Amino acid sequence: MQTVAFCNPPVILAAACIVGPREGEGPLQGFFDKVLDDMYYGEKTWEKAEQKILEETMRLALQKTSLKTEDIDFMLAGDLTNQIIAANFTARNLAIPFLGLYGACATMYEGLVLGSVLIDGGFARYVLVGASSHYATAERQFRFPTEQGVQKPLSAQQTVTGAGAVVLAARGQGPRITHATVGKVMDFGTGDASDMGAAMAPAAAATLLQHCQDTGRRPDAYDLIVTGDLGLYGRELVIKLLEQREIKLLDNYQDCGVLIFNRDTYAGGSGCACSAVVTCGYILNRINQGEIKNFLGIGTGALLSTCSCLQGESIPGIGHAVAIEAG
Amino acid sequence: MQTVAFCNPPVILAAACIVGPREGEGPLQGFFDKVLDDMYYGEKTWEKAEQKILEETMRLALQKTSLKTEDIDFMLAGDLTNQIIAANFTARNLAIPFLGLYGACATMYEGLVLGSVLIDGGFARYVLVGASSHYATAERQFRFPTEQGVQKPLSAQQTVTGAGAVVLAARGQGPRITHATVGKVMDFGTGDASDMGAAMAPAAAATLLQHCQDTGRRPDAYDLIVTGDLGLYGRELVIKLLEQREIKLLDNYQDCGVLIFNRDTYAGGSGCACSAVVTCGYILNRINQGEIKNFLGIGTGALLSTCSCLQGESIPGIGHAVAIEAG
Repeated sequence: MQTVAFCNPPVILAAACIVGPREGEGPLQGFFDKVLDDMYYGEKTWEKAEQKILEETMRLALQKTSLKTEDIDFMLAGDLTNQIIAANFTARNLAIPFLGLYGACATMYEGLVLGSVLIDGGFARYVLVGASSHYATAERQFRFPTEQGVQKPLSAQQTVTGAGAVVLAARGQGPRITHATVGKVMDFGTGDASDMGAAMAPAAAATLLQHCQDTGRRPDAYDLIVTGDLGLYGRELVIKLLEQREIKLLDNYQDCGVLIFNRDTYAGGSGCACSAVVTCGYILNRINQGEIKNFLGIGTGALLSTCSCLQGESIPGIGHAVAIEAG
Repeated sequence: MQTVAFCNPPVILAAACIVGPREGEGPLQGFFDKVLDDMYYGEKTWEKAEQKILEETMRLALQKTSLKTEDIDFMLAGDLTNQIIAANFTARNLAIPFLGLYGACATMYEGLVLGSVLIDGGFARYVLVGASSHYATAERQFRFPTEQGVQKPLSAQQTVTGAGAVVLAARGQGPRITHATVGKVMDFGTGDASDMGAAMAPAAAATLLQHCQDTGRRPDAYDLIVTGDLGLYGRELVIKLLEQREIKLLDNYQDCGVLIFNRDTYAGGSGCACSAVVTCGYILNRINQGEIKNFLGIGTGALLSTCSCLQGESIPGIGHAVAIEAG
């Protein structure tokens, strides 16, 4: 049993998201709170820009409620930069008791799981959860110096620039988190940092199967299932992996990485912000509009490290699922 | 209120720790489960050695109970390597649902906080918590290439090589975690990676004061208070900061970084493993022997990043406190 069913499902009181220029040109452009026209966002470095984006997003989520930073019991956040500096400096500036997370691109969903546990367990009234990524900070940290302009294969994904944040509460109006399925780290031996969808697909499929087994639900119980950032090819792998188990995923299965960009962006989006901004912007909006009643999100993370890759290790993946019901 | 009081205090069913050669020569040598005689531990790289140490420590903690990996509901772990690779690969090999943490050197205590929340909230029966660090992986990642042999100032600390792990349970015999105080990120503007005690002392002092305020306890309510890895000078700063608030810390206040090494090791130990092995080895042993009845541990972390330091940022700190009572 990897799934927790919440007795008093935590409410998503408010959500916010900010994205970069390219994300703002994509098909979901109408769903974001703010679209930046500059990757530096007035800062001297991309890392400082990412921190500013995360902090502003967290503050924006708070502003949508009547709450102040002093009302928030715990902040849970993480990002892709080494030592999660965007989250650390945001936590310093917000001065909320802070628990730092590293779940690679699944960090937002890891935060939703633990935030829900804190609320449902009676340990907190309000929890602020957030995650960020930035194309340029990720690119130079994980791949090549950005200025080098290395050509990419079609299986590559574009790290989403942006941040998402939610305010979770014990009471109030809004969508509710009913279940959380914590994933295991899965490793099918892929080692290509330009094909992260393949690295994460087995973990996403395993978490989805486990969620169905633990809850007795079938995938068609959900109006929409999304994975975090598998991209075009990773999404196809999940469909195939489930077919092997005689489960047919219908049109209700999508991937945030496929949804976010126009089709000229390799295999789609990736990064902590991919599932964060699509969930906080597009999906919660559609839930609040009554267009989606039952939603299952599976945050996916590729546990990529330049250090372990250079030492001959493969890239394992992880997926955490969260079920959300319209309020 | 940053403090959670557990209604059904989680039990520390078992603990394990493994340390490197230098830690094994220190004053606590009799309290560790295993002392390595080689920093590589039979592996080709220090990073692989650290992962092996963490995995073996987690398995050892499990072996001390009658539990198997399948019995464990969640694993919480982290370390200092970029993208917490020691924890990720350990989670892959143990195949336990995994939540990755980054709390710098406070990671073990962050894990104890969240592990206790999962148990006390009724979300898990058994949680495995662990953290590791390795002198050589930390040195080359955060400071200088190890082979360069850069001379260090006396305020520098030695990253502890080793790992600690505990099995937390809802029932059973053993010491119990009664309270947890989640810290805020504090920043007094220090920027010296060779004086981490100064970076963390304000956070440790703030968490201790907050814990006392929230629980109505005074520091002398505890037989022993330890901070995680402030070292000689950081410990003195905490004593001074509390004196300013007219609280006198007595002989019952120690620091894991001061306890672990012989006095020829700069200002003492640091790293995730510092508080982890001193707590899992020395302190839990003394609690189980009846020598300590009430214990308060404050895991401390310096949110150091080479990237943010090179971009002119200071080094903020954090401290998470956990109160443990003899079983």
